[in-house]
Amino acid sequence: MFDSGVGGLTVLGALVDHIPSANYLYFGDTARLPYGSKSAATVAHYVVDAVRYLQQQGAELLVIACNTATALALPEIKAAADVEVIGVVEPGAAAAAAATRTKKVVVIGTEATVSSHAYRHALSAHGVVAYEKACPLFVPLVEEGWVEHAVTEQVARVYLAEAFADSAREADVLVLGCTHYPLIRPLLRRVAPEHVAIVDSAESTAHEVARMLGQSDSAAQGRRGEGRLGAGATLKFFATDSADKFRKMGTRFLGLPVEDVLHVDLKE
Amino acid sequence: MFDSGVGGLTVLGALVDHIPSANYLYFGDTARLPYGSKSAATVAHYVVDAVRYLQQQGAELLVIACNTATALALPEIKAAADVEVIGVVEPGAAAAAAATRTKKVVVIGTEATVSSHAYRHALSAHGVVAYEKACPLFVPLVEEGWVEHAVTEQVARVYLAEAFADSAREADVLVLGCTHYPLIRPLLRRVAPEHVAIVDSAESTAHEVARMLGQSDSAAQGRRGEGRLGAGATLKFFATDSADKFRKMGTRFLGLPVEDVLHVDLKE
Repeated sequence: MFDSGVGGLTVLGALVDHIPSANYLYFGDTARLPYGSKSAATVAHYVVDAVRYLQQQGAELLVIACNTATALALPEIKAAADVEVIGVVEPGAAAAAAATRTKKVVVIGTEATVSSHAYRHALSAHGVVAYEKACPLFVPLVEEGWVEHAVTEQVARVYLAEAFADSAREADVLVLGCTHYPLIRPLLRRVAPEHVAIVDSAESTAHEVARMLGQSDSAAQGRRGEGRLGAGATLKFFATDSADKFRKMGTRFLGLPVEDVLHVDLKE
Repeated sequence: MFDSGVGGLTVLGALVDHIPSANYLYFGDTARLPYGSKSAATVAHYVVDAVRYLQQQGAELLVIACNTATALALPEIKAAADVEVIGVVEPGAAAAAAATRTKKVVVIGTEATVSSHAYRHALSAHGVVAYEKACPLFVPLVEEGWVEHAVTEQVARVYLAEAFADSAREADVLVLGCTHYPLIRPLLRRVAPEHVAIVDSAESTAHEVARMLGQSDSAAQGRRGEGRLGAGATLKFFATDSADKFRKMGTRFLGLPVEDVLHVDLKE
């Protein structure tokens, strides 16, 4: 799995619940995050570096657990990789298309994800109209740990009021198009219009990976919480900034101890 | 001048008011920002790259217009540079020491600047006690353009209440230890205790550079606003992410048109 930082650990956490006994390699490009405000060329350049590194470590399937990287660089990543690559946008779009009755959904994400219109294109292929809204303050608020703070609620009210304005009033699904957002899902549930269903791309992607690998979803039953990792499973992490900082923040996102972290300098 | 992004343009703006007729080269490492949450080794590594590039472009004096880079890597930068280097921490600390009567000041900045205790060390040398407080949400709020927003005011109330708590109640100076903060100075002025003086490191650094170059401060009189650039002056910008994004956001920070921007890829 690849992500710009720790956000993709929400995808990893969901995946562990589906497939508890795999060997997971997770690469967080923490020295160069956030990707959300960067240009497509810069993001593609960074991700291809990391993907090559993960292949050298033996990766046999690549999950791009980052909405921005998927939105901006999936074709470039697929071209550079020798193994199968799955991103978070298509599974999220498919789940949203299955959930909407009005065929109108709101997608929230970083500035780069929204500007790329990756969700709009993916949802359009499913016959669904997407209203996209950039929410650049959510990532720093989550990283500050203010997941149930009055300020975060006020910011969410501003963003969601804009997101569900005008013709987007008819939207009946809210897609969490950034892997940081599952941490404020309870808050977003309270602030979003009541009739709106929430679709989490992290969860949808984990589901899709399990399906590809032929794992039954029933494997996830009763596994949440402690003892989620199966026999023979391994979790190995690579971070381009401080390993210690990755360990500390990572545990909060994964919901499992983040221990085996190796610092990697991609410039060498 | 070097900065991780556009924040250092507040230092450049102040400097242009002091020395209107110089040739300015400004390097914004926008592909790798923000530095505020990164480790010292990573920051040093990045800045030394950029400093070498600026010297190749003919820089004869280097201003590190970034509190985080100064706090974490000034000795490494000085060792790598062949020209004189000035950072923003010492000028800010000197101005704060001159302004305080109680010999106690509060310093606000990014997480990395605060963790480095660079201001604490610098102020201690002036016989002043520093109370340092990380305010990681201010940079994204300023970049969102919410400089006079109710949310930013609420965040400022939370941060400053913590900053001026307990023994820091006696502090009579607030140091803006991040080059983004001058944009929310009016808001901080309203929220900070009334008796507290605000010292802006950006302004203090510009003053110090003018002094070093033997320029009289009176040169700045009446020059603010339009027509600030003197005869023969040039402004040239280098950005590691999109030149177009740098132009757009930069103009807001500089208060002058940002036009001549070259995209630079330091990995090549």
